[in-house]
Amino acid sequence: MKVYKKAILPAGFTANGFAAGIKASGKLDLALFYSSSPARASVQTSLNKIQAAPLKINKEHLKVNKYFQAVIVNSGNANCFTGAAGLSDARKMAAYAAGGLGLKKEEVLVASTGIIGRRLPVSKIKKAAPLLIAGLSAYGINRAKLAILTTDRVTKEITVKFNIGSKTVTICGVAKGSGMIAPNMATMLSFIMTDAAITGRALDKALKFAVERSFNCISVDNCMSTNDTVILLDNKLAGNTVIDTGSNFGLFSSALNMVCLELAKMIVKDAEGATKFIRIRVSRAKTYAQARKIALSIAGSNLFKTAIYAKSQNFYGRAAAAAGSSGMDVGENGLKITASDLNKKEINIEVRVNRGNASAQVYTCDLTHEYIRINAEYN
Amino acid sequence: MKVYKKAILPAGFTANGFAAGIKASGKLDLALFYSSSPARASVQTSLNKIQAAPLKINKEHLKVNKYFQAVIVNSGNANCFTGAAGLSDARKMAAYAAGGLGLKKEEVLVASTGIIGRRLPVSKIKKAAPLLIAGLSAYGINRAKLAILTTDRVTKEITVKFNIGSKTVTICGVAKGSGMIAPNMATMLSFIMTDAAITGRALDKALKFAVERSFNCISVDNCMSTNDTVILLDNKLAGNTVIDTGSNFGLFSSALNMVCLELAKMIVKDAEGATKFIRIRVSRAKTYAQARKIALSIAGSNLFKTAIYAKSQNFYGRAAAAAGSSGMDVGENGLKITASDLNKKEINIEVRVNRGNASAQVYTCDLTHEYIRINAEYN
Repeated sequence: MKVYKKAILPAGFTANGFAAGIKASGKLDLALFYSSSPARASVQTSLNKIQAAPLKINKEHLKVNKYFQAVIVNSGNANCFTGAAGLSDARKMAAYAAGGLGLKKEEVLVASTGIIGRRLPVSKIKKAAPLLIAGLSAYGINRAKLAILTTDRVTKEITVKFNIGSKTVTICGVAKGSGMIAPNMATMLSFIMTDAAITGRALDKALKFAVERSFNCISVDNCMSTNDTVILLDNKLAGNTVIDTGSNFGLFSSALNMVCLELAKMIVKDAEGATKFIRIRVSRAKTYAQARKIALSIAGSNLFKTAIYAKSQNFYGRAAAAAGSSGMDVGENGLKITASDLNKKEINIEVRVNRGNASAQVYTCDLTHEYIRINAEYN
Repeated sequence: MKVYKKAILPAGFTANGFAAGIKASGKLDLALFYSSSPARASVQTSLNKIQAAPLKINKEHLKVNKYFQAVIVNSGNANCFTGAAGLSDARKMAAYAAGGLGLKKEEVLVASTGIIGRRLPVSKIKKAAPLLIAGLSAYGINRAKLAILTTDRVTKEITVKFNIGSKTVTICGVAKGSGMIAPNMATMLSFIMTDAAITGRALDKALKFAVERSFNCISVDNCMSTNDTVILLDNKLAGNTVIDTGSNFGLFSSALNMVCLELAKMIVKDAEGATKFIRIRVSRAKTYAQARKIALSIAGSNLFKTAIYAKSQNFYGRAAAAAGSSGMDVGENGLKITASDLNKKEINIEVRVNRGNASAQVYTCDLTHEYIRINAEYN
């Protein structure tokens, strides 16, 4: 398996980014991901009961259709809390991309991120769509990866290649952070493209597992966004023997896990205000679910996170109290918490609960003065 | 019903506070609450799976005994994460009070608050106990209410009096905050004394209800302490007709609710770093439990709390997202959120979910620069 710290599109995919004027700054704010042949989509979205318009429109499209050729994404406006008008705007956005590409709007998926509660300026998207489409290219992924960002300081991108027989399969992912850390410029979005020939059943299974252990294992501020979306498009052009189960599925699944996990870690590392990257590993728990909940409870504790910010040994008691408040099977008896060097930028917290053999890892950052400044001053 | 914003002990109760030298500052750090005749105890404690030694010892004592004459409390040391030695220390603390008062140690309850993970200096408590006991008086409540504090800026105290027939019943409560806001000086403790003649069954029922709607409806930083304890002692000396059900129970219950709710609000108002007191009322929910979970989800959102700190209209979207992430029955459709003047010190947030007729109120504060400073700098 070969890993590249940059976005390299798989066979048949092109992309582009454009400055449509949605962002007042004039930065790139409209992205398009395109596959020359229909691609099987697998989608994972926020569990928040309040969902932004694009999530609802995707759900509609996924009901009538499993194959898509395009994903159109805007940054600068989340199209959330916008009611029926917002749904209509999201449909229009899909239609503008579909029109220029000779597709039905139901063959296009949409995503939005940015300020909430304001109408999406769809006329700007309508005007920009032809130019966005005209500029599609393999290299255009380098504009698309920028156009999906909001307050991110760096792009998040990764490509993994591996062989099945003599054929090379590529999985390429880009993402933007960072889970409501920069409010109203909220939302985690990730777009992953692959050319692997794999059954739809196996594709869905692999994505669900990968997301559960990556994007769902990061916590920046415990706030769940209304727009979080991971879209995986698979156009099956690699020409490999079709993957379903067995060792080839294992290989695909490992590669996809790596793509999702690395993107998730990049999101945590780029969390605004963060000075520390914290890996919390809970081991010897009864089940994976228990281990994960204990770890997320610690990752969600403001007190634990300020202690890490302060490089204070207080992290120990605060982590223990947070573990106890998870409601999971954990007690003072058998609980062991250790940390690597608190002065380093990356910190490993090991929590042994002595209740079984399961373990889980989650990723978070510290809680800092800068977090308050950013989130209070944003208006 | 008459309400006094100060502690006035009911018939038969005395108290005292003493500087035993547990706090390095030399401030009062040892408190004793005493009833001249055995008092029925009702106790509510933290749901954290990690519990400090005093909570475990109280559980032991409550197994063999429902009547108590004394509660001994120290501040400056939480006696938590102290293993078997900590249990032995908590037992000794009970024994020192019991010895001087002519009681069995199982007739004494204990509580501790302060730094975690360090052995309790029991020799200091042993030395101080005789003087603490010798100074017991009705007026001593004014020393006891100070001796239970840690980083609290103000005392928390209230007394409610009401008549049953010709007899006056008194309920007096004191508390210290503020729910892990000041870490390692953590813990919410409350001691409530009454002279009401009431059945044990009714007493337990009233306390459970009152705590659920007061101390369990406040959120400072979403962190659950390992030492939280509410102890209600009832010596039945008021001479009233014994309360069990009906309107007299309603009266007692209302009075106890008020004592608990006012103390809980005082804890939130005194939360370190807080500049705003926020009441969140969720109405038109399916059930009380749903309303409460939605309200607590908003109260626990860092993003919502920094928006309130910044007096920003962003509070709206952040509250909605937090409501949606509660997992309860809530959707964009029918959700209405309004706030009173954001420039005031006390802010009311009204959240209507349009799913039924139940409502709940919770109390929280804003998240500020000062919170980070306090929690990072504490070492």
